[in-house]
Amino acid sequence: MDYTGHLDTALQRLHDEGRYRTFIDIARTKDAFPRAVWTRPDGQKQDITVWCGNDYLGMGQHPVVLAAMHEALDATGAGSGGTRNISGTTVYHNALEEELADLHGKEAALLFTSAYIANDATLSTLPILFPGLHIISDALNHASMIQGIRHGNCPKHIFRHNDLTHLREILESLPADAPKVIAFESVYSMDGDFGPIEAICDLADAFGALTYIDEVHAVGMYGPRGAGVCEKLGLMDRIDIINGTLGKAFGVMGGYIAASAKMVDAVRSYAPGFIFTTSIPPAVAAGAAASVRHLKTDTARREAHQMGAKILKMRLKGLGLPIIDHGSHIVPVHVGDPVKCKMISDRLLSEHGIYVQPINFPTVPRGTERLRFTPSPVHTPEMISKLVHAMDDLWSHCALSRRELSA
Amino acid sequence: MDYTGHLDTALQRLHDEGRYRTFIDIARTKDAFPRAVWTRPDGQKQDITVWCGNDYLGMGQHPVVLAAMHEALDATGAGSGGTRNISGTTVYHNALEEELADLHGKEAALLFTSAYIANDATLSTLPILFPGLHIISDALNHASMIQGIRHGNCPKHIFRHNDLTHLREILESLPADAPKVIAFESVYSMDGDFGPIEAICDLADAFGALTYIDEVHAVGMYGPRGAGVCEKLGLMDRIDIINGTLGKAFGVMGGYIAASAKMVDAVRSYAPGFIFTTSIPPAVAAGAAASVRHLKTDTARREAHQMGAKILKMRLKGLGLPIIDHGSHIVPVHVGDPVKCKMISDRLLSEHGIYVQPINFPTVPRGTERLRFTPSPVHTPEMISKLVHAMDDLWSHCALSRRELSA
Ligand SMILES: Cc1ncc(COP(=O)(O)O)c(C=O)c1O
Ligand SMILES: Cc1ncc(COP(=O)(O)O)c(C=O)c1O
Repeated sequence: MDYTGHLDTALQRLHDEGRYRTFIDIARTKDAFPRAVWTRPDGQKQDITVWCGNDYLGMGQHPVVLAAMHEALDATGAGSGGTRNISGTTVYHNALEEELADLHGKEAALLFTSAYIANDATLSTLPILFPGLHIISDALNHASMIQGIRHGNCPKHIFRHNDLTHLREILESLPADAPKVIAFESVYSMDGDFGPIEAICDLADAFGALTYIDEVHAVGMYGPRGAGVCEKLGLMDRIDIINGTLGKAFGVMGGYIAASAKMVDAVRSYAPGFIFTTSIPPAVAAGAAASVRHLKTDTARREAHQMGAKILKMRLKGLGLPIIDHGSHIVPVHVGDPVKCKMISDRLLSEHGIYVQPINFPTVPRGTERLRFTPSPVHTPEMISKLVHAMDDLWSHCALSRRELSA
Repeated sequence: MDYTGHLDTALQRLHDEGRYRTFIDIARTKDAFPRAVWTRPDGQKQDITVWCGNDYLGMGQHPVVLAAMHEALDATGAGSGGTRNISGTTVYHNALEEELADLHGKEAALLFTSAYIANDATLSTLPILFPGLHIISDALNHASMIQGIRHGNCPKHIFRHNDLTHLREILESLPADAPKVIAFESVYSMDGDFGPIEAICDLADAFGALTYIDEVHAVGMYGPRGAGVCEKLGLMDRIDIINGTLGKAFGVMGGYIAASAKMVDAVRSYAPGFIFTTSIPPAVAAGAAASVRHLKTDTARREAHQMGAKILKMRLKGLGLPIIDHGSHIVPVHVGDPVKCKMISDRLLSEHGIYVQPINFPTVPRGTERLRFTPSPVHTPEMISKLVHAMDDLWSHCALSRRELSA
């Protein structure tokens, strides 16, 4: 059996399609983020500005987060030493879960090692809790939701992205007495568009379905206390299960769901992806809790974040670059070709010290390859100017098309 | 649709079977572990000794680990801010992967957020890399391997635990030219028995199969440099993929595989569970790397660990308690009934300040419920004596059977 041959084939396929990924080795410097140091493949170091991180608010270097982590390390040590059930539940885990339940106005929250596993474990467990369940899923849902739904092995139905008519058709076609979950996102991270949350909740009510929302790219950033888009729109109580991450705007790591006490208790009790794994380190839980708590009141940071995104979009639009603007904090620039996308990214990095990873298939559909910029409150006006000029130059050099400036 | 009724039913089932889990809230105190503070349900605090943690060597409070974590926090901040591909690869992640590849004598290693997800993501990706793959899996493999194999959606075959005859029968029944993987563990954590690694490798060679081993309960603890049982037996080069955790003997959090450069590159490129999730915080990677590095030479700690386990087993055996002894560091005492198991555990905790979680279904098969003790180099002789006396008392009080002392 030629196992190596199979591996060669699998890897060659990626090279052929121009979507083999090489990881960029970067070292962030605390207090200097989004400045960082890139170790080039030849070993040389170069100063860069990170323009594609998901530490959207710069909380990964916030003193309250770091102080909480240092303190917990000193008080309790490195790891939790166990699964949640076997010696791995600490005051830090419980406090964080309370903080998150409060954030979302839910009775309870449940921590996972990541939002990936929170989606995977929860969605795959729902069919165990609700025999006969149908899951109805937005076509652009994140990979972790797709995996969870697959792993649940129940009937699933995909509706066209944000298409309420299609969603309604599917709901109408299902047995009225079957349990149903509609799974979708509040902010789709690659286009930066919003899900039609209220309309989906209305349909869920009409057809007696549960609602499951991924707010991974919204928690910390939207709503008066940073609970996400559902909070901003006053819809939190219409969502049955809210999924969020502690690794993006909250700047640390981990994931969770927030829901009714019974729902959380049942997922806690049945989901292998929750049960059979070491819990997150107390220091990570402490840092995340400090970040969530801080962002409940730091409205200025949220506003600066939105302002940064608005300015960057306006300036890129002013140059006629094909940016995708749905009014969120994410700034995608459409390229539409994996090889060109990588080339621009490479040149931004090596010639301009601007780091933005090319986003290619399978993260986005083929033909929609893009650069995805994530401005934050710690990106300065000078950094924005530098980026805009570099993009202008490269767009001309590469003879990429521009929109009519009036568009 | 009565969703709450369904949740009630699911939860009631656990209560009825005596296997509803209540998490014990404990706070470890750095430098004092295995001493910790338990917050009782009534809010009162009680000093306890943790006897069921998986921080087997006490590395979670080792100064080199904590210093590395503090330093990385100061240098670089809290989270990585991205997936490995999108700004989340740092010098800390790369250094840890090198440390792990070196540990296992492999060309490369790949970090995951946990060993759970390392198993799940890798095993479910192998069928993509090797079309037509059959996975042959030990009946007592960990939940994370079972999930990964299920999620791979390829033909799977379960052999009776450690039964080489059965394994051979299965291999003989499969097409000679089909790719195959044999998946098993080196130390089965609930019984503490070892897999017959060499014999399985022989069968793999005879039938042209790959070998996949979970060394989660062995890394750090076995072998001259702490690479696990395969190192101890000189078999590392006969295993194709080694899975390990950073959350047990290494005392921090995270998981990994070590394998050939091509295998790692292919899993890295194809596994959604690796690709679509925030990478572990640099400080966690730094702490884990320090722990791995330290344990490469700290043989004394490994010896003290084995000695502690030997002494505890000898003393419990001396009282005729039904301990399961396969010569590993894990000390399971058979109870065989979920309600009694929980009762003994409750009384050990509240009356003796000894914390050992009852291990019930689904973690172990019904009828094999047990207490599972994990002595470590930081458990003192006095702690062992206290435990042994408490067990002796409780065994008499509960009229549980003892073995013939000569057995
Ligand atoms: C055999 C085995 N494999 C894998 C895991 C998962 O490891 P981790 O805690 O790093 O997810 C565990 C326990 O947690 C285990 O017992
Ligand atoms: C929409 C969405 N959901 C879930 C996740 C997973 O979150 P985490 O990084 O905490 O695993 C991500 C990205 O990583 C995401 O983009």
